[in-house]
Amino acid sequence: MKIHGKHYRTIWTRPDETVEVIDQIKLPHRFETVVLKSAEDCAETIRNMTVRGAPLIGATAAYGVAFAMKKDPSSKALISALDLLGSTRPTAVNLKWALKRMHDVLHAKTHGERFAEAWAEAAAICDEDVEVCRAIGANGLKIFREAAAKKQGTLNVLTHCNAGWLATVDWGTALAPIYMAYNEGMDIHVWVDETRPRNQGASLTAYELGSHGVPHTIIADNAGGHYMQHGKVDLCIVGTDRVTRNGDVANKIGTYLKALAAKDNGVPFYVALPGSTLDMSLAHGSDIPIEERSSDELLKMTGRLPDGGLATVEIAAPGSPGANPAFDVTPARLVTALITERGVCEASEAGLKGLYPDR
Amino acid sequence: MKIHGKHYRTIWTRPDETVEVIDQIKLPHRFETVVLKSAEDCAETIRNMTVRGAPLIGATAAYGVAFAMKKDPSSKALISALDLLGSTRPTAVNLKWALKRMHDVLHAKTHGERFAEAWAEAAAICDEDVEVCRAIGANGLKIFREAAAKKQGTLNVLTHCNAGWLATVDWGTALAPIYMAYNEGMDIHVWVDETRPRNQGASLTAYELGSHGVPHTIIADNAGGHYMQHGKVDLCIVGTDRVTRNGDVANKIGTYLKALAAKDNGVPFYVALPGSTLDMSLAHGSDIPIEERSSDELLKMTGRLPDGGLATVEIAAPGSPGANPAFDVTPARLVTALITERGVCEASEAGLKGLYPDR
Repeated sequence: MKIHGKHYRTIWTRPDETVEVIDQIKLPHRFETVVLKSAEDCAETIRNMTVRGAPLIGATAAYGVAFAMKKDPSSKALISALDLLGSTRPTAVNLKWALKRMHDVLHAKTHGERFAEAWAEAAAICDEDVEVCRAIGANGLKIFREAAAKKQGTLNVLTHCNAGWLATVDWGTALAPIYMAYNEGMDIHVWVDETRPRNQGASLTAYELGSHGVPHTIIADNAGGHYMQHGKVDLCIVGTDRVTRNGDVANKIGTYLKALAAKDNGVPFYVALPGSTLDMSLAHGSDIPIEERSSDELLKMTGRLPDGGLATVEIAAPGSPGANPAFDVTPARLVTALITERGVCEASEAGLKGLYPDR
Repeated sequence: MKIHGKHYRTIWTRPDETVEVIDQIKLPHRFETVVLKSAEDCAETIRNMTVRGAPLIGATAAYGVAFAMKKDPSSKALISALDLLGSTRPTAVNLKWALKRMHDVLHAKTHGERFAEAWAEAAAICDEDVEVCRAIGANGLKIFREAAAKKQGTLNVLTHCNAGWLATVDWGTALAPIYMAYNEGMDIHVWVDETRPRNQGASLTAYELGSHGVPHTIIADNAGGHYMQHGKVDLCIVGTDRVTRNGDVANKIGTYLKALAAKDNGVPFYVALPGSTLDMSLAHGSDIPIEERSSDELLKMTGRLPDGGLATVEIAAPGSPGANPAFDVTPARLVTALITERGVCEASEAGLKGLYPDR
């Protein structure tokens, strides 16, 4: 997708065998990039959320393995890198998926082959992610067209957090059909949940949509239910960090509340995901580990001063503690359908097995 | 209640026939007060939320009428002041209630009597509010005791926005039973919803509870559903700006989402209110006008810099618009019970008529 008229991916290689990523901590205040040169760089970049979004985390971790193999192609170093990178974020399953894929490709290779193989495999993960997201977009677009055909005027879509191209390598998951609908001239408007505490909606989704020209409005996370009660939301679509065998969906904290409101108001609630986000090893969403992050994310806020500088301010009552669970689980019963690169299915084991008999 | 060991109300008179209020915009960063000298001062103070909370708005408006009568005790000036003050906030019904009460007391009085009568009536509204909140607290405390008796360990209570003593003249509505439970030694902990976009939870509720010593934790508005799913919320209690005849509840935006989550997880959801918050003239919550406030409240944030100064920063993507509905309506079907100064009742016309046959 484009920023200032120039096409970008969120992660790309440089001629000197390093990797460059968009610094998503600085967005939307500054557009800056960061160069990654080591497995440690990649791990820290994932942990501190310079890169975020389940698919992009997987791609970044794959390059982390490649850097480790460049430095030391031993099996011990491989295991060590997989451990380091795998420990960065506990909830997203794409991370584990990408690391397992790197392991499976590399473990039988000779030391001399490992770096080149790893570098190529990381690139393949990135290219495949772009194609997978494009396919998710095309499958979601059919649903959007049907919804738009049923009503007059603007199609109002609500999304939570950022499941756009910044969360993937390109296109995005939940936002891919939005871009495609906009590109084909559909009258579409997006309610962007701010997505406290890290504000990925107000910062990243709004930035993406604004850069592409898609009409959108930022709202407090508290407001979506009210708009649904008043018929101002035609459908909800979100991404996910892990879907379990029964169709339960882990996604950014607050997703569950929007799914409840959608159900209460008869608004369809869709979840967009690549197959790499499926975790068929877990029976229920309650089995998913939920990451607890620093309360500083809640109690402090960074933004632009009137003079253009950036400042971080403490916003809460001095001395009051905070808690910050990063994800919640939306039960499958609240999900209208899952939109994947292979098609659309019910959020259930039967639905998933229909599209992914190989899993 | 106490701040820095000193007992305060939120509004009090001064010997020079002016009124002093706590500046709630500055909290929790600064404790400052503002002196009000005119109806216009009172109106602006309500509009810009220097004072907020349905009962406190009513009390401030009453003094506004008194100031108008001091300046010009004519009936024309009385009507003009009622209009000015009545137009400041559309959702809270206590405002209308307090203004009607002032009108009913004053309209038959002579010009010479009006200021003294108005001043005394405003003081009576304040004193009655304290007593009403104390009674709400006592009635809520019984529910808290029953809930605490049913479980071992800490009673976890979730609240949204600020319905504490800062929202009233003293004690608060939803927080009154919390203070009483804490004061009698109950093992209680409060999950404080941040309450975007104005952060009344993180700013005011946390400040109140911290000043009084009540254990509490600030959470993003997104997190409450997750904690309910995990059994970490024993009951919810919130205030309200207007309750309609059928028991529907208008309260700070986002309340509806918490009520949905409470229902979905079998957590009792209580609404605490004085009788002045009842609007028996409206059949349903959908009849309540919902105030739309400036998107600046969403897109900018004020906080403390590391050097102790205050700064306001822009937090969202530059150029992205925001929308900011200030309240939503929680349907009566999601409310376990209403807690009033006259007792506890079902959120229904029958329930309300049982406690308020005179309304």
